[in-house]
Amino acid sequence: MREEVTRVLVRYPEVDRMNVAHHSHYAVWFEAARTEWMRRSGLTYRGLEDRHGLLFPVLELSARYLAPARYDEELDVVAWVSELDRLRVRFEYRIVRVSGGRELATGHTLHVAAGRDGRPRRMPQDLFAALRAWSFG
Amino acid sequence: MREEVTRVLVRYPEVDRMNVAHHSHYAVWFEAARTEWMRRSGLTYRGLEDRHGLLFPVLELSARYLAPARYDEELDVVAWVSELDRLRVRFEYRIVRVSGGRELATGHTLHVAAGRDGRPRRMPQDLFAALRAWSFG
Amino acid sequence: MREEVTRVLVRYPEVDRMNVAHHSHYAVWFEAARTEWMRRSGLTYRGLEDRHGLLFPVLELSARYLAPARYDEELDVVAWVSELDRLRVRFEYRIVRVSGGRELATGHTLHVAAGRDGRPRRMPQDLFAALRAWSFG
Amino acid sequence: MREEVTRVLVRYPEVDRMNVAHHSHYAVWFEAARTEWMRRSGLTYRGLEDRHGLLFPVLELSARYLAPARYDEELDVVAWVSELDRLRVRFEYRIVRVSGGRELATGHTLHVAAGRDGRPRRMPQDLFAALRAWSFG
Repeated sequence: MREEVTRVLVRYPEVDRMNVAHHSHYAVWFEAARTEWMRRSGLTYRGLEDRHGLLFPVLELSARYLAPARYDEELDVVAWVSELDRLRVRFEYRIVRVSGGRELATGHTLHVAAGRDGRPRRMPQDLFAALRAWSFG
Repeated sequence: MREEVTRVLVRYPEVDRMNVAHHSHYAVWFEAARTEWMRRSGLTYRGLEDRHGLLFPVLELSARYLAPARYDEELDVVAWVSELDRLRVRFEYRIVRVSGGRELATGHTLHVAAGRDGRPRRMPQDLFAALRAWSFG
Repeated sequence: MREEVTRVLVRYPEVDRMNVAHHSHYAVWFEAARTEWMRRSGLTYRGLEDRHGLLFPVLELSARYLAPARYDEELDVVAWVSELDRLRVRFEYRIVRVSGGRELATGHTLHVAAGRDGRPRRMPQDLFAALRAWSFG
Repeated sequence: MREEVTRVLVRYPEVDRMNVAHHSHYAVWFEAARTEWMRRSGLTYRGLEDRHGLLFPVLELSARYLAPARYDEELDVVAWVSELDRLRVRFEYRIVRVSGGRELATGHTLHVAAGRDGRPRRMPQDLFAALRAWSFG
């Protein structure tokens, strides 16, 4: 499966009183990695929305927090597609501290393909084929 | 001038390593107070956007931070309009810690009336008259 | 099981291009509800941290998104404890749109009791007893 | 004056219903640029806090918004120090869209040097000298 890695830097306001990155930001980092994964596939979220009217709202999110991320640390967010059909796509994530390589978190998101009205809409065949080839090819 | 007060509670992820609310959140609290000010005037941002296609993007923002806000403190955000014409509206803000009444911050935002395309558009006369009456009446 | 309800208002910056509240904010709303649940139990997160040096970092988070939340909508976030021992506490959540009562999301968080150093630390017996009584009493 | 440039990518949750980056995020981008500026000077915020107990809380913030930033756009955030003494430092910022070079915003922050207790504390002479040399050298 095609993994893509996106690097993020933990910003000051993302860190809380415990001096650890607040757990709500991981969803934002997952999304940054998913966006990069898409971009490297030759597609972009922005293009899918702006040109095709196709959105991928989140149906499910999970995260497991294994070790804290701290201010000003660099993190690698690894993303890959584990399941795909014309209506749904499931992304998996792993976050690793760049310095030392410790795994800090894992997670997944499940998305449905939808039109601008928010209703489920099957992906066009060519788009689906491109995503499948990139994911598993 | 008509002041309206909106109460907010400082949330955990809004507080940083110094155990103080991060300065970027004040803009969000100012906006919450501005939204309430509008709602109490009988107008709503949502209605202006959804029904009239009228937006009020921010042209300027300033804030002065006088004393820190901490986790789980209740704050009163006071908002009022200090200047208004058919193209622009200027809001002023004051944030006060509910317990003890200490002033924590002041600030302002300047907004331009704009259409959905983001271009400046004068407010309709009746809307302007209603805002003026509410602001200074 | 003791449910507590916390009301939140969807703020402008919490809504994205699709005109729906971004999925990352649900974790913040869950936390606001958990904080209120604790406060009503007679304990507070702030007190636990400041006076007892006891923290409850998040080990796991999940959310299912059933229907979108939109700008300026009021939401009720229902929280309750489903599992509790001296090392771990699991909260469940349900988010309901106030107008109409539609369920928008469900989720959970799992927390470990920890000291200021971030290492697991069993809750003091009296605190545990108080939490258990409040949760299931 | 020494300018340093930090590149940021506008993330999905940073964009609002108007399809423009919400004005509150500019303070976060300013801070990211300030952090980089410091790092390139050989100092780091993290080091100043962790090793010297020296903080730079924000006393003032201003921003002028000239043109919108949109989802997935790359921005260059330019930061430089315009005023410096042993108690205060003033940073200026300019945000430029990478594609096309349009200036999107300007702003400033004013900081006070403070100890861990949040009280003003003059910078050590060697630190001040290093900052001055880097800023204006």
